[in-house]
Amino acid sequence: MRATIIHGPRDIRVEERPYPNVRLPPDVVVKVTASCVCGSDLWPYRGVRETAEPRAIGHEFVGVVESVGDAVTALVPGDFVVAPWVGNCGECPQCRNGITVACDHRASWGSIDEHGFHVDGGQGEAVRVPRAEATLVKVPGVDRPDAELTANLLALSDVMGTGHHAAVSAAAGPGRSVVVVGDGAVGLCGVLAAKRLGAERIIMMSRHAERQALAKEFGATDIVEERGKAGAEAVRSLLGGVAADSVLECVGTKESMDQALRSTRPGGSVGFVGVPAGGAELPIGVLFAKNISVAGGAASTRVYLPELLEDVLAGKINPGRVFDVEMPLDDAAEAYKAMDERRAIKVLLKP
Amino acid sequence: MRATIIHGPRDIRVEERPYPNVRLPPDVVVKVTASCVCGSDLWPYRGVRETAEPRAIGHEFVGVVESVGDAVTALVPGDFVVAPWVGNCGECPQCRNGITVACDHRASWGSIDEHGFHVDGGQGEAVRVPRAEATLVKVPGVDRPDAELTANLLALSDVMGTGHHAAVSAAAGPGRSVVVVGDGAVGLCGVLAAKRLGAERIIMMSRHAERQALAKEFGATDIVEERGKAGAEAVRSLLGGVAADSVLECVGTKESMDQALRSTRPGGSVGFVGVPAGGAELPIGVLFAKNISVAGGAASTRVYLPELLEDVLAGKINPGRVFDVEMPLDDAAEAYKAMDERRAIKVLLKP
Repeated sequence: MRATIIHGPRDIRVEERPYPNVRLPPDVVVKVTASCVCGSDLWPYRGVRETAEPRAIGHEFVGVVESVGDAVTALVPGDFVVAPWVGNCGECPQCRNGITVACDHRASWGSIDEHGFHVDGGQGEAVRVPRAEATLVKVPGVDRPDAELTANLLALSDVMGTGHHAAVSAAAGPGRSVVVVGDGAVGLCGVLAAKRLGAERIIMMSRHAERQALAKEFGATDIVEERGKAGAEAVRSLLGGVAADSVLECVGTKESMDQALRSTRPGGSVGFVGVPAGGAELPIGVLFAKNISVAGGAASTRVYLPELLEDVLAGKINPGRVFDVEMPLDDAAEAYKAMDERRAIKVLLKP
Repeated sequence: MRATIIHGPRDIRVEERPYPNVRLPPDVVVKVTASCVCGSDLWPYRGVRETAEPRAIGHEFVGVVESVGDAVTALVPGDFVVAPWVGNCGECPQCRNGITVACDHRASWGSIDEHGFHVDGGQGEAVRVPRAEATLVKVPGVDRPDAELTANLLALSDVMGTGHHAAVSAAAGPGRSVVVVGDGAVGLCGVLAAKRLGAERIIMMSRHAERQALAKEFGATDIVEERGKAGAEAVRSLLGGVAADSVLECVGTKESMDQALRSTRPGGSVGFVGVPAGGAELPIGVLFAKNISVAGGAASTRVYLPELLEDVLAGKINPGRVFDVEMPLDDAAEAYKAMDERRAIKVLLKP
């Protein structure tokens, strides 16, 4: 089968790899119908994170169950499923606490599992999924989703759940003012999540017309183009002199966290989901003096999937709108390039 | 009147100062009946924080209203009052949001107020209190509290409210396991607060027999003497292999925050109230990977005072037990020395 392999900085190749098989009784093999490129995939692409050796990449996918191991009863061939961005067991203390990203048996796509077997990357034709019943979420009543539904479901794999995690972590909701730092796909989903949670005033910080438009479609009430002190001042001015109750940090750089902290009122909350790109330690003196709480991190999207799926199937949210470009899997290298150069918000790949 | 003045590192003197008067209509003058030394007073005492020029010190006191300004109607001479550790206006957005420590008109004891008038320190015979109706809390039905009640009320000025803030910030409560890092007066009050909030399992990290005993009296179920990795391992072992849901960081050093983070389970919460003593930036990568939330900071004890006062008056909590030594005000220098050398948990000063 064809699968996307990262060899090093700016070196993405679609190569031939062995088709996966069930290796262990809880396994399932999923034939991928859509996957995509994540903002965090750009860190190794840009060389910010080292790629020690060539490896399969991609951690967001949806598809059809093709074969199941002997221990699998809740999934059958033909089921349409969404995979969260990391696999989990559902039984360890971390999973029971709702923190599936810290699962004791966590399986990352494009790596080796705890039993020494290869786990395929998401950007390929098929994936062996360990502990599949705990990890995968079946989409009820759906066999072959159309393009729009496919995009909405694929967004639940990571980007929408991550935006939701930022919003929940920042305590966004009714009566709370919200600022979103980062107009990438995660930030845009953060706007959608804040709106869904009941926030009435949502300010998106963005300089890109196309992203501003999508933010407004998702529920943003205001756009701030300024950055740094001027950006925080613009936020304060929009909110009547006080900074925001809830700020979603959806980038992961020192600058974006500074922007988030500046834009948060005393006693307010920062929800952060941008993968820290190095050098971004939190200034404890600022948190102390302003009583700013910081929560978030890698999102346990598996936990959020059922409630978000319900809203997608009910037509209440359309997170798939963040996919503004679709390409065939064979063009994966171009997909990375388009996202790196910010020509695309998020690229959907069709195997 | 006599007042405690800090001149520099380890240079505490009780000196003669002008007796305060009402300067502005919202002012009240309080005759202090008890004050005390705070762990944070030890930072300038030890020279960790610079003392640019001699200044009145002390920010915790209780006493009797002696005279009131023309705008004051809710307080009358003879009222017994508790002062929170910082003054506030009660009307600005920060006060309305419950973050009185960030009040736009914040008045610190032992400083100059926004109108240029001196505000006395708490460790003295009397204090002019700006915006007194918003700042002071009257103790209903109490004229002359006995020694035990005086200690309990004085604890509400700062130390108990701060321990409570740590517990609330760490989401301590029913069904949550709690670890307290720091066996000073704040940490001990953190134990009491966690117990009051309904936590059943409370682990105190302490190596001092006397403090361990008080922690147990306050509700600690377990004591851990080890530190660092071994301490975190001991916590995990007590909790069946998983670290704690809620960790109260009540010191403020890099080591204590490391200890707190190590002792928190994935998805758990750190409530931090130790005044950051420099160099203790938060490692965002650890927070991200483990989904640990961090909240807290300087406690708005004014906000917590009414509910804690109710429990003190009902005899439900005895936070005044943290005062293990009482001295006359004239011995303030010795009080600082005893706390610096950890011979006393917290010293109560009688003017």
